[in-house]
Amino acid sequence: MKQTPWLALSIDRKVNTPVFEQICAALRERMIAGDLAQGSKLPPTRVFATELGVSRSTIVTAYEQLVAEGYLSSQQGSGYTVCALGEVELSKAPATPKTPSEAEPPSRPRPFASSQPDMRLFPHRQWAKCVARVCRSDPQALLAGGSDLGNWDLRCAISGHLSEWRGIKAAPHQIFVTAGSTDALEICLRALADKDDVIGLETPGYPPMRQFAKAHGLQVHDLPIDDHGAQVPPRSARLKLAVLTPSHQYPLGGAMTPNRRQDFLQWARKTDAWIIEDDYDSEFRYAGRPIPAMAGFDQLQRTIYVGSFSKVFSNTLRLGYVVVPENLIDRFRQTLHLFGIKASAMPQQALADFMTSGEFYRHIRRVRRTYGERRRFLLDSLKRDFAEFGHVFDHQAGMQVIFHLKPGFSDTDIAQRAQAVGVDILPLSGFAAGPSDDNGLMLGFCGFSIDEMQPSLVALQGCFDDGSV
Amino acid sequence: MKQTPWLALSIDRKVNTPVFEQICAALRERMIAGDLAQGSKLPPTRVFATELGVSRSTIVTAYEQLVAEGYLSSQQGSGYTVCALGEVELSKAPATPKTPSEAEPPSRPRPFASSQPDMRLFPHRQWAKCVARVCRSDPQALLAGGSDLGNWDLRCAISGHLSEWRGIKAAPHQIFVTAGSTDALEICLRALADKDDVIGLETPGYPPMRQFAKAHGLQVHDLPIDDHGAQVPPRSARLKLAVLTPSHQYPLGGAMTPNRRQDFLQWARKTDAWIIEDDYDSEFRYAGRPIPAMAGFDQLQRTIYVGSFSKVFSNTLRLGYVVVPENLIDRFRQTLHLFGIKASAMPQQALADFMTSGEFYRHIRRVRRTYGERRRFLLDSLKRDFAEFGHVFDHQAGMQVIFHLKPGFSDTDIAQRAQAVGVDILPLSGFAAGPSDDNGLMLGFCGFSIDEMQPSLVALQGCFDDGSV
Repeated sequence: MKQTPWLALSIDRKVNTPVFEQICAALRERMIAGDLAQGSKLPPTRVFATELGVSRSTIVTAYEQLVAEGYLSSQQGSGYTVCALGEVELSKAPATPKTPSEAEPPSRPRPFASSQPDMRLFPHRQWAKCVARVCRSDPQALLAGGSDLGNWDLRCAISGHLSEWRGIKAAPHQIFVTAGSTDALEICLRALADKDDVIGLETPGYPPMRQFAKAHGLQVHDLPIDDHGAQVPPRSARLKLAVLTPSHQYPLGGAMTPNRRQDFLQWARKTDAWIIEDDYDSEFRYAGRPIPAMAGFDQLQRTIYVGSFSKVFSNTLRLGYVVVPENLIDRFRQTLHLFGIKASAMPQQALADFMTSGEFYRHIRRVRRTYGERRRFLLDSLKRDFAEFGHVFDHQAGMQVIFHLKPGFSDTDIAQRAQAVGVDILPLSGFAAGPSDDNGLMLGFCGFSIDEMQPSLVALQGCFDDGSV
Repeated sequence: MKQTPWLALSIDRKVNTPVFEQICAALRERMIAGDLAQGSKLPPTRVFATELGVSRSTIVTAYEQLVAEGYLSSQQGSGYTVCALGEVELSKAPATPKTPSEAEPPSRPRPFASSQPDMRLFPHRQWAKCVARVCRSDPQALLAGGSDLGNWDLRCAISGHLSEWRGIKAAPHQIFVTAGSTDALEICLRALADKDDVIGLETPGYPPMRQFAKAHGLQVHDLPIDDHGAQVPPRSARLKLAVLTPSHQYPLGGAMTPNRRQDFLQWARKTDAWIIEDDYDSEFRYAGRPIPAMAGFDQLQRTIYVGSFSKVFSNTLRLGYVVVPENLIDRFRQTLHLFGIKASAMPQQALADFMTSGEFYRHIRRVRRTYGERRRFLLDSLKRDFAEFGHVFDHQAGMQVIFHLKPGFSDTDIAQRAQAVGVDILPLSGFAAGPSDDNGLMLGFCGFSIDEMQPSLVALQGCFDDGSV
């Protein structure tokens, strides 16, 4: 570490950051903090170089970089001067806290929060390289790339993905990019159902769907789950659509049987209803072959397919998609324009590149292996140490397991005790439309290492010790 | 222009781009095109400098910049070498169509489409640099940076922006980042109103708001606009909230008078109603001082402030924000989690950096100057060549003007004729809640150069020739 008295700037030659970048960063910081006021002159390159013990060209590089960034201006013969930071003086910024206040709780999930990918496994470096490549080679693609319905390359990549992974043949223009799958599901409801229409929702099911239905003034017809999957509604129920999770029922796990799928498709054709297939986590199967999508069976005749990158890739990019039959394209496009498009263009080109380069699939394979180990550990622990309290079915898929409780234990009660000792568990009964016999605990395993799960399992055992009712 | 035979690189000293940046750009292009293959050596700095007739330090600056960007590597004594462009080969893409099919109409707007920034003026290069810098310096910030309610640096930058530009003192934890202002407005409705509640909407007003209200099963109480702005509703109307555009009424233009603002705030306090201030384009004022926000008057007691980056920056990033009173923070946070967060984390750190570096404000100044010239041209043309058909009020603000028609012309009729000849104009009467006396044309001027507007104005005149009823 060298210290120069003037500007007290320190250079660390052991880190990877080039020296000129370290100098840039330090000067930038001083200017933003207001230590280097507008109009003040920077030391001459030769003097500064000697002071810091670096070559003069390093200083020139740093200064020129800051000129390009708009921090400094240079005039032939008169050296480098600090520019105004915009017409607004940023030094007068209000005394805002520099770190999230206590009002903002940290968002790191605790075991056994469900449906959360482990973002610590995210390939940050490869992703950043991919994004940087878009920045260099095609800056405009950061903000566009096709239409406002989605970057064209991404829609082509999704088309390829669906063909390879889900058995769905969809042309790119049938695919609309959305701000995640909740946005996609909402667009489906808006495009296909009006106030007071009846829609079918699985019970137990995904609670936000009921929330949407309520917020949109829709009537809900419950579709209870039996051993074959959701039950087909009677024709008399006059449903406009049914939202299903055939590949992996949420929250119970398990796939809809082929016969039940056929029954549902027949029902949709006969009643002119739509099936919305919410295929939220089909990439995570730990054994056997992938379960083909229902939209693939049907070749998108009466089915609309909703996919998401939130679970398989990143939950903060907020990207999903909806795949619609040819004859619904115009209706969905109008709905998207009427209610406003919410998907950011910014990640789309990079994601398309990430998919076509294969890096995306390497990532899926990598996390699936890790999630598989975590799942194995959790299932073994539950079978070994919790057998007296209940049991699990092993569906070989997904991001969470349901631990079904024996009579005598209440899932809401155990979940509450668990929350009190810092263990994040949801009661299965909370996913039902109304009063239900479901009595189980949802345990997510993807977001946590075995070392993180272990103490939580010990704490959970404590919740059972005094938890029989 | 100097040409060097080797690499055929040309330098233009008359443009504003620094010489070192021109050299960087040219080399970058050759490397992406594959003309400079991986592993090939660049000419020694001294030789290249002589060839180009520039100083050696300019060449060093350019080379070092490319090292920092990952294009070149440098080794003591062995000069600069071209790196592999990523560890991934991009050539294995599937054989999907490479261009949008005819099913996907191009989205370039035609004159006089309104509310559209001209993305050709967007500082793509600076933005890409800013994003690339995040990729290099903090790859994790591409996907996070605080909580799911918004990147903390961005919320701090917005807090500073609101204080300087809008007179609003809001702490970062009061600010939630949303997927644009439509998302923000929807979150407000969901957080503050239930099915069958009554809300106040301006008429004429923003049509999607009526659409949301309908989709959410809300009752609408119309707030007609007079010379002072929207009219205060009677207490008996029992509104839960009113959505207002006080800085610049949409679509008429014009600011709400200070007295009317006070009346509205008093109404809100007395009836326990909320005011949602939709401040959609306040950055675009072409004369005088900015109109302070109503939320600044009230210091966020009964007002919720909605802002957007779509008009002032880019309509494809899909970023906006909502600023809420302290006592609504928990309610908004719950609503956001219940209905799902839709704002992508990806652009947030870069936007924060763009704002704090001042580049954002330089961009606003630049486009405002251009938009001002376009606006001047359109107003002058309308006053000079269209006086027999109607008149404009000059509100010195916004992204569109309203041309009020004389009796004898019908706005829907003229707009329809205009659409038929490729001129994109909206009839003012379409913004009203029901039948109305409004009779005018909305002409957006931001998205089009004077050269592009000229033929459209000629075509528009033709629509009047046979357009009296």
